[in-house]
Amino acid sequence: MTDNIFDFIGGDNGQWRILSITTVIGATLEFTSHLKITESTTAKCNSGLWVLKGLRSNLRYTEKEEKERLTAIQADLGRPESTRAALIPIRKSEAWWTLAQDERRKIFETKSNHTETGLKYLPAVARKLYHCRDIGEPFDFLTWFEYSPEDSELFEELVNNLRKTEEWKYVDREVDIRLTRI
Amino acid sequence: MTDNIFDFIGGDNGQWRILSITTVIGATLEFTSHLKITESTTAKCNSGLWVLKGLRSNLRYTEKEEKERLTAIQADLGRPESTRAALIPIRKSEAWWTLAQDERRKIFETKSNHTETGLKYLPAVARKLYHCRDIGEPFDFLTWFEYSPEDSELFEELVNNLRKTEEWKYVDREVDIRLTRI
Repeated sequence: MTDNIFDFIGGDNGQWRILSITTVIGATLEFTSHLKITESTTAKCNSGLWVLKGLRSNLRYTEKEEKERLTAIQADLGRPESTRAALIPIRKSEAWWTLAQDERRKIFETKSNHTETGLKYLPAVARKLYHCRDIGEPFDFLTWFEYSPEDSELFEELVNNLRKTEEWKYVDREVDIRLTRI
Repeated sequence: MTDNIFDFIGGDNGQWRILSITTVIGATLEFTSHLKITESTTAKCNSGLWVLKGLRSNLRYTEKEEKERLTAIQADLGRPESTRAALIPIRKSEAWWTLAQDERRKIFETKSNHTETGLKYLPAVARKLYHCRDIGEPFDFLTWFEYSPEDSELFEELVNNLRKTEEWKYVDREVDIRLTRI
């Protein structure tokens, strides 16, 4: 067992009840009633209607000053009042992945304010990124958000702001799963 | 089967005969006579005395202008005259991985000239990087080099130059495996 690899299992049981599965762009995911999140390995395959595997890794674009601000304000997952969550798996186009590091950074932050936008909604919206592009998965990232019902509108604003950015033009598959803690 | 994940299998058969296994820093790898490289998956575990799994991914530090120069001059693996190879698995310390992207880039290139040094030895020394930090492997990277016997001295110069850099102070495990094509 590693401590950085997780399975997100769509099935008939789990810690989260699925409220909706909306396809933003590209192929959808089949509707299931529950989501279970469990520590895993690259080798281990848990069963469900679908399983998305993702791994926690180091930050790829965040600069020192941004990282310090994030660290100062960031919220942990699992806060009791954060009974709402969103799992948003996304895939980016080949055009994104053939860009050099400085080109991706420029689109990610200079043009799209990705980190700045995330900071604006902290600590209300806690967030965790899971990588999956390199391990043979259908998406490139699984983004996970937790917030309280009172902060639902704030969360909609965050997601809408991100979807309007230059960076999001490179997203060619996105599914938006909303959940409530059981 | 994915096309970006590979197993490097140390055992009694394979396309490459092992000439030497030298421990530069940290724990060693047991000596075997041969190395087999095969396409794999994260799940599949091939057998041998040891197996190192690595994946090809996007460039993490290379900027646009550097990428263009690399693309213009880079050499493919598998050139018939490149009968010598080196497999150098390395691991970097936690201190490296907690640095922000701009801090790592500064050490990698501004202070250590990593890309510039690689460019200097192209096309003589072909090179491929495999990532393995995030998938529960003992090393962070597998670096693979191919060159002709006539370029052996050039290759020693390249490796020595990299090991003298600021970046290499963050390397806490390194094994140097030299091979000849069968």
